[in-house]
Amino acid sequence: MKEIKLNNNTENTGFLNILDRKALASMMDHTILKADATENQIIKLCDEAVKYGFASVCINPVFVKIAANYLRGTGIKVCTVIGFPLGAAVSRVKGFEAEDAVGNGASEVDMVIGIGSLKSGNYIAVEKDIKEVVDAVKGNALVKVILETCYLTDEEKVKGCIIAKQAGAHFVKTSTGFGSGGATVEDVALFRNTVGKEMGVKAAGGIRDLDTALKMINAGATRLGTSASISIVESVENSGNTAY
Amino acid sequence: MKEIKLNNNTENTGFLNILDRKALASMMDHTILKADATENQIIKLCDEAVKYGFASVCINPVFVKIAANYLRGTGIKVCTVIGFPLGAAVSRVKGFEAEDAVGNGASEVDMVIGIGSLKSGNYIAVEKDIKEVVDAVKGNALVKVILETCYLTDEEKVKGCIIAKQAGAHFVKTSTGFGSGGATVEDVALFRNTVGKEMGVKAAGGIRDLDTALKMINAGATRLGTSASISIVESVENSGNTAY
Repeated sequence: MKEIKLNNNTENTGFLNILDRKALASMMDHTILKADATENQIIKLCDEAVKYGFASVCINPVFVKIAANYLRGTGIKVCTVIGFPLGAAVSRVKGFEAEDAVGNGASEVDMVIGIGSLKSGNYIAVEKDIKEVVDAVKGNALVKVILETCYLTDEEKVKGCIIAKQAGAHFVKTSTGFGSGGATVEDVALFRNTVGKEMGVKAAGGIRDLDTALKMINAGATRLGTSASISIVESVENSGNTAY
Repeated sequence: MKEIKLNNNTENTGFLNILDRKALASMMDHTILKADATENQIIKLCDEAVKYGFASVCINPVFVKIAANYLRGTGIKVCTVIGFPLGAAVSRVKGFEAEDAVGNGASEVDMVIGIGSLKSGNYIAVEKDIKEVVDAVKGNALVKVILETCYLTDEEKVKGCIIAKQAGAHFVKTSTGFGSGGATVEDVALFRNTVGKEMGVKAAGGIRDLDTALKMINAGATRLGTSASISIVESVENSGNTAY
């Protein structure tokens, strides 16, 4: 496995500065969340995740049981999404959906907060919303909290990160990929600065190439969500970033 | 109230050919489903629905309780969305969400089918999915089945309509407004021809002006979902379609 160093024009925050293809793949949630995905596409996604060694397949709840059965014993996790992508389900439905997903074999759940609650300053509702999911998974899954940054001010992003941490979530995540914008380097850095080193930061939405992926990691991301995962990891050895 | 006749270049299927502003409003679900909607915007939506006499406010589940309390006694219904907009939640979660929404005061639920199931030809799963919601509302709400036509072939659209009817739903609905396309006149006509007169047909997604609204109605729509409801009904008296 060849190693690469990041090029000099990306800011190095010290979280990671040397990557190989396998290490990069292990930070990626291999993702299909589109509405018209079929079982066959999900099975293909699972096969690819095994081949490349991605952290997980990130799929809609309806496919969790199939993927979990298919991936049993491979070490690839099943990640699913809760209250997705609008975040506008009621908290108890998010909890029910998360519990159901874990029962079907999910070991990571990416939940969307009630965005309107955060924007209205109803922080108690936001914390309750997250806690409902944290409690529902009973320690059997990582909980990632999607703030959907494209709709938030910086102040709201910081507040959302703090609440997610207080509520016992494991990750903060930038975006659903269905909003008006995706992850930015600035938001990832803001998330990392806010939550410290104890929480994961997942960058998602619009990550289509290796350069963007590496910038996100250098800004503090410990997980990337993308459907371009294969072309990104396959770029590693061909990249101008490569230094042997 | 002034009456208008449809202009001659819209096809008249005989379902409706004379409209006034009030009649048109009573066919419209006044809609806000965007992820970053706030409580204040929902209250404003409710006030507008009362003022114009829309059939319902169509809102995300998180706002159902507030809107139902606010609208009590006005005759304006609360419509909400289930498994929305991807349709990729598991059936029992859709059922749970629908039951919860009705408990909170919704009297209409617009559910999205498992689109991948339909596209994979898994018709048993599609019917089970719809039935779960029909059963969950226990006759206390209308069930509209969103097929999300932009992802379907004509054959799949017809099959979806037939299954929705078999499963005991009350309406078929074209689109979520979050897919790659919205309602078309052709799809509304296809829905109407498939389900006959006993079911409602709701056209939604991309209905932004009076002319489009009237074309949908003439093609067989009995309900329209739009967030441009006010400007549409306010166009009635100013419209070139008007004939006194």
